[in-house]
Amino acid sequence: MDKQLIKEMKERVFAANLALPEAGLVKLTWGNVSEVNREAGVVVIKPSGVPYSHMKADDMVVTDLDGKIVAGKMKPSSDLATHLALYKAFKEINAVVHTHSKNAVMWAQAGRGIPAYGTTHADTFYGVVPCTRQLTFEEVASAYEFETGKVIIETFTKEKIDPLAVPGVLVYGHGPFTWGETPQKAVENSIVLDEIAEMAEVTELVNKDICPIPQYLLDKHFFRKHGVNAYYGQG
Amino acid sequence: MDKQLIKEMKERVFAANLALPEAGLVKLTWGNVSEVNREAGVVVIKPSGVPYSHMKADDMVVTDLDGKIVAGKMKPSSDLATHLALYKAFKEINAVVHTHSKNAVMWAQAGRGIPAYGTTHADTFYGVVPCTRQLTFEEVASAYEFETGKVIIETFTKEKIDPLAVPGVLVYGHGPFTWGETPQKAVENSIVLDEIAEMAEVTELVNKDICPIPQYLLDKHFFRKHGVNAYYGQG
Amino acid sequence: MDKQLIKEMKERVFAANLALPEAGLVKLTWGNVSEVNREAGVVVIKPSGVPYSHMKADDMVVTDLDGKIVAGKMKPSSDLATHLALYKAFKEINAVVHTHSKNAVMWAQAGRGIPAYGTTHADTFYGVVPCTRQLTFEEVASAYEFETGKVIIETFTKEKIDPLAVPGVLVYGHGPFTWGETPQKAVENSIVLDEIAEMAEVTELVNKDICPIPQYLLDKHFFRKHGVNAYYGQG
Amino acid sequence: MDKQLIKEMKERVFAANLALPEAGLVKLTWGNVSEVNREAGVVVIKPSGVPYSHMKADDMVVTDLDGKIVAGKMKPSSDLATHLALYKAFKEINAVVHTHSKNAVMWAQAGRGIPAYGTTHADTFYGVVPCTRQLTFEEVASAYEFETGKVIIETFTKEKIDPLAVPGVLVYGHGPFTWGETPQKAVENSIVLDEIAEMAEVTELVNKDICPIPQYLLDKHFFRKHGVNAYYGQG
Repeated sequence: MDKQLIKEMKERVFAANLALPEAGLVKLTWGNVSEVNREAGVVVIKPSGVPYSHMKADDMVVTDLDGKIVAGKMKPSSDLATHLALYKAFKEINAVVHTHSKNAVMWAQAGRGIPAYGTTHADTFYGVVPCTRQLTFEEVASAYEFETGKVIIETFTKEKIDPLAVPGVLVYGHGPFTWGETPQKAVENSIVLDEIAEMAEVTELVNKDICPIPQYLLDKHFFRKHGVNAYYGQG
Repeated sequence: MDKQLIKEMKERVFAANLALPEAGLVKLTWGNVSEVNREAGVVVIKPSGVPYSHMKADDMVVTDLDGKIVAGKMKPSSDLATHLALYKAFKEINAVVHTHSKNAVMWAQAGRGIPAYGTTHADTFYGVVPCTRQLTFEEVASAYEFETGKVIIETFTKEKIDPLAVPGVLVYGHGPFTWGETPQKAVENSIVLDEIAEMAEVTELVNKDICPIPQYLLDKHFFRKHGVNAYYGQG
Repeated sequence: MDKQLIKEMKERVFAANLALPEAGLVKLTWGNVSEVNREAGVVVIKPSGVPYSHMKADDMVVTDLDGKIVAGKMKPSSDLATHLALYKAFKEINAVVHTHSKNAVMWAQAGRGIPAYGTTHADTFYGVVPCTRQLTFEEVASAYEFETGKVIIETFTKEKIDPLAVPGVLVYGHGPFTWGETPQKAVENSIVLDEIAEMAEVTELVNKDICPIPQYLLDKHFFRKHGVNAYYGQG
Repeated sequence: MDKQLIKEMKERVFAANLALPEAGLVKLTWGNVSEVNREAGVVVIKPSGVPYSHMKADDMVVTDLDGKIVAGKMKPSSDLATHLALYKAFKEINAVVHTHSKNAVMWAQAGRGIPAYGTTHADTFYGVVPCTRQLTFEEVASAYEFETGKVIIETFTKEKIDPLAVPGVLVYGHGPFTWGETPQKAVENSIVLDEIAEMAEVTELVNKDICPIPQYLLDKHFFRKHGVNAYYGQG
């Protein structure tokens, strides 16, 4: 195991976890961030139920891609199996974030995907942020966290959504997961997700007949920031 | 009277009271936290109407289980009789919190219990957080604060709710009470209660036909964190 | 003119003005607090349009009860005439606060008084916080700020409301005024007013058929904190 | 190029950009402020996609009035062409601000102008804050940011609105732009715009039949703060 690699992963995952309460996305011990390195065969994730104020970078738990702990004295986040399922199915993502952020949870509890009502949405999510179907009794009773990952993957497969183009999802009755190339980017996607969730709530109150923005505006904003023709930022 | 015990209770109760404005749950002098020790026969509670910024641990008032002041120069919170009634009826709880936190009050004023719309709710409250019936003229005119405690107990008894499984309630037209094993845990339950109250408000706006989560998901989340099969946290 | 009296009034009025942005009740240069001393025949009020961050206690403007400046180099708040009208009509009040706090403005803009939906309301306001009628063209075109004071007084007179029992009002299409025995108490009433305004908004969303609390509960909570039988606080 | 002039413009634009996250109007790298000096033929604007926490005054980008970079190593905000279009059409404005502030975006996404429901609105905006029509496919596909500017100008021309009397607009499906005599004033207009947007949302919830304030009250409040007869402030 490459000690320097693990150290850097722990620091990135730790910083990304701390960013969640700073951004107002979690309360108490809620929320978790992980990062994968597929070549090294390791995942680094927040320990379960530890207060953010007491957490140290070195408390981050290291597992292999099947969830077996390979370093660290603590238990990993109880949502680890969901993260692992996403890493196996979505090959290009390196980090996963789970929160109970208020507005994203409201839509998850309402069982509705978030329509693309504006360019704030389109800058990050190329279309509806989908909501999964409800898990069955059997799925919940068996390997609940793993099945949560599976129903996310099923949603993206069935609806033919590219997880890089829509880096987030709502799990029915539960809450949001987002992902990205880095832990920081995945946290930013959680920040945007909660913001557009809130905007969409009131958009519907202010105009009950509002429709999503047209495809050409969605295209313009998403590809202004993403892909080979992006021209936003200094890159 | 065991001085060390009292000192420690005062410090816990003081810290828990200060946590209320820090968590945004109270304004001005609203809110109060108490702790009971049944063996020692004492209750420690916030003094009435004292600003949080001026309060010291030693200002906490010590009473017996009938509310007779046994130490301290200040008057106890005017809600003391409600706390005492709860301690007598709910044998396993050691701390009670009362706030006028915004979202919980909104549901109390609306006279509705909070349905379990998601896993954020289920992680802490095993089912609906109930709302009491309205107090009668006679109840309000006689021993108001004691009757407030009685109507809470009546609600849990009639609806056969276990106060450990649902550690909180809304008093009709008034606001929330929560409880727990420790003052800190009871405060955390108040934080969660206000959060799920807000989530439930908007859940209903976003989907007018939404139903509570199924029993099997409620079971899964509650027992993931509580009871002998809990696997959340480091415990 | 009693220099010590003026100095103390300026300090109280200054501190109360600063409390408005601290409590999140005003943005930019909005809002103003004044205090009257009827024996000395002076009113101290915030200067007009000065940023809170630059203001000093000594910038407070001193006028007589007709609004003639008797000390200070700055222009008084443009709302001074409203304050003076209230001081002349409501003999027992010593301080007035005006804000554009979000939730109170929402009700003022909606042209509705705030119903007493709960005990948070009843602890401070003994019944509906009324909303004035709309000012006429003539009233606005003539002595606008004075007429604003007059329509407040008209509201309390016509509806037979005691300004000590209901220490605040909404001016139609404009915003709230509150008052009290001291500048600090008047600011606290503004804090409570905005809080109960927000609570009432969502109470109506959560239960469209909700009614105000019964008179006996209103009585209980108001007189628990006010009048000769009050038993809240250390007083 | 006048070095001192550029230095001062950069400092004002930098400070105004920093004021956006401080006022809670932007998240991540969203938002941008610019200032024009028509005599010197220069525009100073925030660089594209740079985190606010890392930005320095000297990072501000200097362009001519056609958007050609004349100083600075960074790329200007991708919204530059919108700013330039506004400077060419609205001769009296010297600064432009663009944000994705929550409440203004909600109305932009709903495709509705914000009615003047109260004096908080009238103090800054002399009537409805208009919402543009939706951009066409051709407009979005060609010079999108320039066309965004053009549709704003079209809105003000068609509806005969004076951009000094209504210093802001909502772009359909996108968000707000505001302007003013200085960067600071333009930022203040963004703060007010988001505040009145939020107030208007709930005003409509609290009273579904509410109408805008009468013209005479709009006149009174706007001209109390603006024009030759203004009497608000120390000026």
